Amino acid sequence: MKYVVGHKNPDTDSIVSAIVLAYFLECYPAKLGNLNPETEFVLRKFGVMEPETIESAKNKELILVDHSEKSQSLDDLEEGKIIGIIDHHKVGLTTTEPILYYAKPVGSTATVIAELYFKNAMDLIGGKNKELKPDLAGLLLSAIISDTVLFKSPTTTELDKEMAKKLAEIAGIKNINEFGMDILKAKSVVSKLKPEEIISMDFKDFNFNGKKVGIGQVEVIDIKEIEDKKDKILELLKEKLNKENYDLIVFMITDIMKEGSEMLVIGNVKMFEKAFNVKVENNTVFLEGVMSRKKQVVPPLEKAYLSN
Amino acid sequence: MKYVVGHKNPDTDSIVSAIVLAYFLECYPAKLGNLNPETEFVLRKFGVMEPETIESAKNKELILVDHSEKSQSLDDLEEGKIIGIIDHHKVGLTTTEPILYYAKPVGSTATVIAELYFKNAMDLIGGKNKELKPDLAGLLLSAIISDTVLFKSPTTTELDKEMAKKLAEIAGIKNINEFGMDILKAKSVVSKLKPEEIISMDFKDFNFNGKKVGIGQVEVIDIKEIEDKKDKILELLKEKLNKENYDLIVFMITDIMKEGSEMLVIGNVKMFEKAFNVKVENNTVFLEGVMSRKKQVVPPLEKAYLSN
Repeated sequence: MKYVVGHKNPDTDSIVSAIVLAYFLECYPAKLGNLNPETEFVLRKFGVMEPETIESAKNKELILVDHSEKSQSLDDLEEGKIIGIIDHHKVGLTTTEPILYYAKPVGSTATVIAELYFKNAMDLIGGKNKELKPDLAGLLLSAIISDTVLFKSPTTTELDKEMAKKLAEIAGIKNINEFGMDILKAKSVVSKLKPEEIISMDFKDFNFNGKKVGIGQVEVIDIKEIEDKKDKILELLKEKLNKENYDLIVFMITDIMKEGSEMLVIGNVKMFEKAFNVKVENNTVFLEGVMSRKKQVVPPLEKAYLSN
Repeated sequence: MKYVVGHKNPDTDSIVSAIVLAYFLECYPAKLGNLNPETEFVLRKFGVMEPETIESAKNKELILVDHSEKSQSLDDLEEGKIIGIIDHHKVGLTTTEPILYYAKPVGSTATVIAELYFKNAMDLIGGKNKELKPDLAGLLLSAIISDTVLFKSPTTTELDKEMAKKLAEIAGIKNINEFGMDILKAKSVVSKLKPEEIISMDFKDFNFNGKKVGIGQVEVIDIKEIEDKKDKILELLKEKLNKENYDLIVFMITDIMKEGSEMLVIGNVKMFEKAFNVKVENNTVFLEGVMSRKKQVVPPLEKAYLSN
């Protein structure tokens, strides 16, 4: 059985990429956890079913989308067979056999998939060159908007904007900005969520030079939405650090309008300070302009660990 | 400065892929060592200049072709910036930032490049959709023939054959088999080479679970061509093992006609025996049907090391 599957703590790009790619590759989409409120909103909006949750790689052929870190994938990954990776992150694993690998440094995996579609080049990655229906075009557009924070994230490229325009046409969406604000609002339902839910919504594990590092992120329209939950969040993260043997946990509260992130830093604070050349006080520091975990947080942190 | 560069001890696929991809990406091709007799023959045949040899990654943007193992690349790779990888091997490195990565499990990197050309999809990897001239088509065809041993290697796919046919048309080559035998003969000039030259012609380093392993290969039309040099080759490989701290060296003498390889095994012989479930006697064993380092030697060896 062949599955397309995104990362743990799935976000919209991870779910949507699995659904749309499975359509072109004519296999099954899968997910590794519950949908977040934004993704639920998006799937409901376009009337698309959520993919099946899988818990084991056993006897499965897997195409990973939107990740290549083993720590973000199925726990028993080596029981299955990775046959492909379609991604927009750094290269996070090595393999023992040749596989299909297609990744580009763009704003979302949905962008990579959309480009293959519009180039009529799905066959390059083993897919069929079929028509993209309006519902799936709407999903891809939503994923681009979500991952690029409506083109405000520094990971945004011209290709993301170009693909979004073309997808909006197929999906029949006239005003991308208006549509985008609806998605971001759905993303930013933090005020309604419990602290436990907030920290687990988008939390990724990394292995930096042998050390376990967790980096979570929540996006808000205004940091005030989350202000009264911050103490509880910090407390929960400290528990998590100890229980699950993290060397460092970083939690980004990204203010979409201010275009920056309040960073909660627990554990190896010195390493964080070295990586960003800042001073952390009471486990927190605001970083102007930092909105992307992938592009602005992972690389300096990994470099700091590697040079240790 | 932007360079496309293949692996150390370059073979025809590595050199040709650098030349042709640099043409489409409008940057510079480079190499990491001297041409082997086959590649010299091929470049002379199509009247194409050999790429410049580079010795440092400093201040360079690099697109790696035909490899992704750091041990097969520039020694000071981290002084430069890897911006892309176009390959047909297993994933051999991780990166700290998102890059362009395009690899397919096919017979040669030239196949991957040819497919992008015929799909008019060079722009997917940042290239121009320009015309492929007959000389460059001839080079790509030669690389496919070389890497797949005229479609006899088990790494050969339908795509390799399809691309070879289309490239032959552009290059004006009527009989691919005849042309292929000329290349294989040029490859198999071992009888004229010194043992030192034979072992260094196509030798790659790997890091398996922290251990340094070297795997070399030479292809012959008939193992007898090399018979009288085998003792000297073994002696040289033993010296190399000790001097350069290898845990294991495997040298494949691949008999193209018999479709199998005599394996010279030096160092951690037990690991090799475990990986292939065979008995090595006097440092040698013949493996029926084994012709591909990438597909038939690297995976079982790496697995044996990892499960140790």
